[in-house]
Amino acid sequence: MFSFKVLKQSAATRARAGVIQTAHGPVETPVFMPVGTLGSVKSVTPEELTACGAQIILGNTYHLYLRPGREVISRFHGLHRFMNWRGPILTDSGGFQVFSLAKLARVTAEGVAFQSHIDGSSHLLTPETSIEIQGWLDSDIMMCLDQCTAYPAPFEAAERAEEITFDWALRCRDTWRSAEGGHQALFGIVQGGMHKELRRRSAERLRALDFSGYALGGLSVGEPLDLMLQTADFSLPLLPDEKPKYIMGVGRPEDLIDLVCLGADMFDCVLPTRNARNGQLFTAGGTITITNAWYRTDTDPPDPGCGCYTCRNYSLAYLRHLFLSRELLAYRLNTIHNVHFFVRFLRRIREAIIKDEFEGFKKRFYENRKI
Amino acid sequence: MFSFKVLKQSAATRARAGVIQTAHGPVETPVFMPVGTLGSVKSVTPEELTACGAQIILGNTYHLYLRPGREVISRFHGLHRFMNWRGPILTDSGGFQVFSLAKLARVTAEGVAFQSHIDGSSHLLTPETSIEIQGWLDSDIMMCLDQCTAYPAPFEAAERAEEITFDWALRCRDTWRSAEGGHQALFGIVQGGMHKELRRRSAERLRALDFSGYALGGLSVGEPLDLMLQTADFSLPLLPDEKPKYIMGVGRPEDLIDLVCLGADMFDCVLPTRNARNGQLFTAGGTITITNAWYRTDTDPPDPGCGCYTCRNYSLAYLRHLFLSRELLAYRLNTIHNVHFFVRFLRRIREAIIKDEFEGFKKRFYENRKI
Repeated sequence: MFSFKVLKQSAATRARAGVIQTAHGPVETPVFMPVGTLGSVKSVTPEELTACGAQIILGNTYHLYLRPGREVISRFHGLHRFMNWRGPILTDSGGFQVFSLAKLARVTAEGVAFQSHIDGSSHLLTPETSIEIQGWLDSDIMMCLDQCTAYPAPFEAAERAEEITFDWALRCRDTWRSAEGGHQALFGIVQGGMHKELRRRSAERLRALDFSGYALGGLSVGEPLDLMLQTADFSLPLLPDEKPKYIMGVGRPEDLIDLVCLGADMFDCVLPTRNARNGQLFTAGGTITITNAWYRTDTDPPDPGCGCYTCRNYSLAYLRHLFLSRELLAYRLNTIHNVHFFVRFLRRIREAIIKDEFEGFKKRFYENRKI
Repeated sequence: MFSFKVLKQSAATRARAGVIQTAHGPVETPVFMPVGTLGSVKSVTPEELTACGAQIILGNTYHLYLRPGREVISRFHGLHRFMNWRGPILTDSGGFQVFSLAKLARVTAEGVAFQSHIDGSSHLLTPETSIEIQGWLDSDIMMCLDQCTAYPAPFEAAERAEEITFDWALRCRDTWRSAEGGHQALFGIVQGGMHKELRRRSAERLRALDFSGYALGGLSVGEPLDLMLQTADFSLPLLPDEKPKYIMGVGRPEDLIDLVCLGADMFDCVLPTRNARNGQLFTAGGTITITNAWYRTDTDPPDPGCGCYTCRNYSLAYLRHLFLSRELLAYRLNTIHNVHFFVRFLRRIREAIIKDEFEGFKKRFYENRKI
């Protein structure tokens, strides 16, 4: 069911355009995946996501496992029908949130014991249960449970995390292979902190397990931008070119364009949705802070060149008024604009790659930034 | 520009079906008007209101005067373009909020002095400024500044309020007549508490001023339901039948059906929108509290017979999950359902009146209620 094909390889860089086939339709890469933590991309409907051009969204296993939980989601045979999203869904493993959100996370031989951030109840997330949960969520792409290190991570800590990540990847793969429902793909996640030796070891060992795709985890965790790009630059070629390459949790438009150059195909980030709710709008000219007094009487849309619902119908003055008045519509209109911006940005990068115009596209991107 | 025509008079009751013509299109009565306090009906877009069948919405003069204020709205030549709503808008006078929300409201000969609930700044709302503000808001129907009494109001207090209300109505009318832009209609508001003598005096004096329409104010202010209905029953026939009759700020579906029987044409209430945000859904069977554990795994929509976007696409289990998780989408999906319910409810009442089936409609309404 799952497949990936590179349609065009850029001559000057490692950038490439491809297409992933999933049980719920195709995903054209490079692609940006909006984050739908709790069974909704905050404030917007599936129809609005589709109108923004989104082809695939992300769901968070940790959150959905805790609520609404298996009994509820199973009544709908998975997340798609529950939330009314008909396109592909990628679920993370739950590991990242267990370490960042849950209380008293403790790594054991079996997995991670933790307490729910909602009610303090005790749970154990193992490679086996993570795949099981992603199974009843019925996502199109599942992720292996991994251990992400913070920055800076000493070599020994990063090495231990890489060891555990590999052990868990093996167990995730075995659980996946023995399970019914071969329509779900499984991606391996490369860890190793900013240590090249560990990144190489992680990538090589995971390659041998023959996953449907590969991700770089543990980036954008506090390291300087240069180091993030260096690590991605070093690690991406270690992943098999015939599989999709996914950079988890990154980032700003300028980071995405650089990472596409280095060969990345898939991205997710809460930046467009979270910043929308904080009154920040991404545009070709740079980032707009909607509370700025400058926009008080501005009858123009946030980005005159943008074709999103928000820009076609509303002004900066109206968006500023809604946001300052804490009107619920503010969060939605801002989110629609930002999701549209990120999704279309990657779509335009893809078109430029296909037409062999990516270098020119990148140059114009930097020229257009005014703010 | 403004006109009203009764198309059908029910034989058994005072119920009637009509149509109001405004500068922004027709309004079929009896009609429910969703409340868009600050330039948005909380959480929903104009397109969603239209899909719910809404023909006219209400804007709050007090709120819009304080923010975004004249300078901003004037750039858009009024509220319509500012908020992107192309249909008719009715604005209240600001008086009700000055007395209920603002600080230190003090009635003087001129008008009401008050301090903003937002920043404590001092303002004076007079009949003249109320009409002026509603002028730059450019609503299709303006309301006279009035003084609403709480319940219970002793005769003397209600009499004073009625006196002031009449004086202000006269000044509103004179300001309106002398102003440019005759496309805006102006409604008078009958006060007088629950005192028949005062209601009669108020109605008779206002009739002489020949407003475009007439409203009953000061209902649903804490009085028993019977007394509210009695006061409406007594007062509605005192208003001219060739003008629209508007009951302000009421109420529940069962109240609306009774008030239509008594001859009312227009309604506004925050009930559908506010209760939606509190997790209450109106259905033909009664009111649903979405947090109820009963709905945890319920794959049915809130109302299987309802054609709204929410009921066509989402389950009780999903709505419950969103609401308990405080997801922004919850408030919107609930609001769409409730606005659709209220608007369609009045639409169906109207159709029943036209077909001379209103009595049967009313009987079935009570039979269907289970909750």
